[in-house]
Amino acid sequence: MSLLEETIRDIKHVDIDPRGEIREYIDKFAIPACSLGRLEELATIYVSITDDFFREIKKKVIFTMAGDHGVAEEGVSAFPQEVTGQMVNNFLNKGAAVNILAQHIGAKVIVVDCGVKKEFEPLCGLKIKKIGKGTQNITKGPAMSRRDAERSIEAGMEAFNEEFNDGGGIDIIGTGDMGIANTTPSSAIIASFEDVDAEHITGRGTGIKDSALAHKINVVKRALAVNRPDSNDPIDVLSKVGGYEIGGIAGLCLASARKRVPVVIDGFISTAGAYIACKLEPKTSNYIIASHKSEEKGHTFYLEKMRKLPLLDLNMRLGEGTGAALGISMVDAAMKLFTQMASFSHAKVTNPNNE
Amino acid sequence: MSLLEETIRDIKHVDIDPRGEIREYIDKFAIPACSLGRLEELATIYVSITDDFFREIKKKVIFTMAGDHGVAEEGVSAFPQEVTGQMVNNFLNKGAAVNILAQHIGAKVIVVDCGVKKEFEPLCGLKIKKIGKGTQNITKGPAMSRRDAERSIEAGMEAFNEEFNDGGGIDIIGTGDMGIANTTPSSAIIASFEDVDAEHITGRGTGIKDSALAHKINVVKRALAVNRPDSNDPIDVLSKVGGYEIGGIAGLCLASARKRVPVVIDGFISTAGAYIACKLEPKTSNYIIASHKSEEKGHTFYLEKMRKLPLLDLNMRLGEGTGAALGISMVDAAMKLFTQMASFSHAKVTNPNNE
Repeated sequence: MSLLEETIRDIKHVDIDPRGEIREYIDKFAIPACSLGRLEELATIYVSITDDFFREIKKKVIFTMAGDHGVAEEGVSAFPQEVTGQMVNNFLNKGAAVNILAQHIGAKVIVVDCGVKKEFEPLCGLKIKKIGKGTQNITKGPAMSRRDAERSIEAGMEAFNEEFNDGGGIDIIGTGDMGIANTTPSSAIIASFEDVDAEHITGRGTGIKDSALAHKINVVKRALAVNRPDSNDPIDVLSKVGGYEIGGIAGLCLASARKRVPVVIDGFISTAGAYIACKLEPKTSNYIIASHKSEEKGHTFYLEKMRKLPLLDLNMRLGEGTGAALGISMVDAAMKLFTQMASFSHAKVTNPNNE
Repeated sequence: MSLLEETIRDIKHVDIDPRGEIREYIDKFAIPACSLGRLEELATIYVSITDDFFREIKKKVIFTMAGDHGVAEEGVSAFPQEVTGQMVNNFLNKGAAVNILAQHIGAKVIVVDCGVKKEFEPLCGLKIKKIGKGTQNITKGPAMSRRDAERSIEAGMEAFNEEFNDGGGIDIIGTGDMGIANTTPSSAIIASFEDVDAEHITGRGTGIKDSALAHKINVVKRALAVNRPDSNDPIDVLSKVGGYEIGGIAGLCLASARKRVPVVIDGFISTAGAYIACKLEPKTSNYIIASHKSEEKGHTFYLEKMRKLPLLDLNMRLGEGTGAALGISMVDAAMKLFTQMASFSHAKVTNPNNE
């Protein structure tokens, strides 16, 4: 049995019950009922997933998954393809936004080369899981073979499992991405599964102008027309119009769910990966927390289809795992409240509901 | 000249210019233009206020201002009045939500007794600035004398100034409140200044039921009818329908603005205090950052009138400074990005705008 099959088989349903014993536990805290709003929801989700009322969120890992895209040659991005590899170096030198936000929240960043064109030397903080040197141009044929699509998902699983096993477990993960042109496959993925016009889910990515956007919408349409991805087969969609790092993110979500580790997803590209994970195994969804609503146009559509309400809306659209970092901080805050707040009786505060 | 007059006189206009030299500085970072969204806005605000491009936000202080309210005897809260004093003890024992969130973000909590009914012994973390043992019932007459309204504002100023002078400056403050029944005066304050129905800005506070809400709306209307606060005189409004801790929050905002220290306000009650500060000196507004949108009904109206877009919307309505803590963390993150991110040239990342 492959790692992919084994991982999917082992994912268990988790029940997130806002009215059960976790709710009773929260209701003992010396606060007005439900006054911590979504922080209470986050604690409920975290405790449900981990089945642990007393967990301190210590080990936080953000996986920044990197890959190149053949479709970059169509001019769909404001940046040239070489920037993917340059940014990987920036991550490894700890100069990027995700490094700074990870340090801010006490998380480790692991960069995974899922298929960057550039070659990297082995280095601390980098996992080399290169499936190829960039995907093929999806306007001309599939991004990658079916086998490579599976391997890209397994690359994400391996990255998670290695870190989980080496580091004595993980308490929470965040996902992130780097890949010039990767909003294009992310748009094509959702349009492969859902009945939606390319115009509605194709945005400006790193910041292209109107004429380039019209061209990009056409590129998404051509990718779909040329490849005819099978919406009943998530691996087919990933291989036809996806990307190596998007497969890697799907793999992270599945491997993390298998180990009952909550997954905080970043923006548009991470959501594409998480969406594929949920198509492969719908039970994965309850392990996933949406950190923020990206400015990228199609993100809201993705989140609606996945029934996820993002925690933050800060007009961000950087990727890397920056939104995930801020989202992890919220879950961390929620669990600190859950494990440390005084109860009415302990704090000797009058509880009107007990009178 | 009184502390109040002197403080207001010294507040300088600060220009928050999203297109000036701070923008040029941000545009050098190795990220797509404007892709960090509101984090860029926060850095712009912080740098503009402090006039310091290199500030590390070290000293963070959340002031939790406490006071009792005579109007509690009208049954406008789900909690009995004694809870104000009990919660002050909970803050001092570090068992409350604000303590835990403050620790999460690396902030100190200072509790200020602006007028709690209960007497406290001097204790670390507590400043006793008691103006009275709770205000008078605003449905029967003014909450406090005009002189006490001024003194309550000066209590907040003193609390800020003492901490600023003792601790070698402050890099950012958050405001918070504790006072059973204090949503009622906060609703009455905005209705004193703006043409708005009491129904529109009176909410459930700590969680009252429908019949109690109808009664509370009537209480707000009676307070306004009995006191006829003068909308051109913020001190008159505060004395007629305000509260000691609300005056204290106004004083914090003014004193902090005077020292060019950014103020992150919490929810409904803090916004009432900040609103009064801005009425006393409109230049104060540019020093204020709205942390979150409270679930309390009238908060959105307040924020719209103050032209503040809150950072977070997490359905919280606890007060204490809990939302302010999360907001400070966002400003901290923004300034870490601003001071630590690598530029395109430093990171050797191709900048398409330079080609």
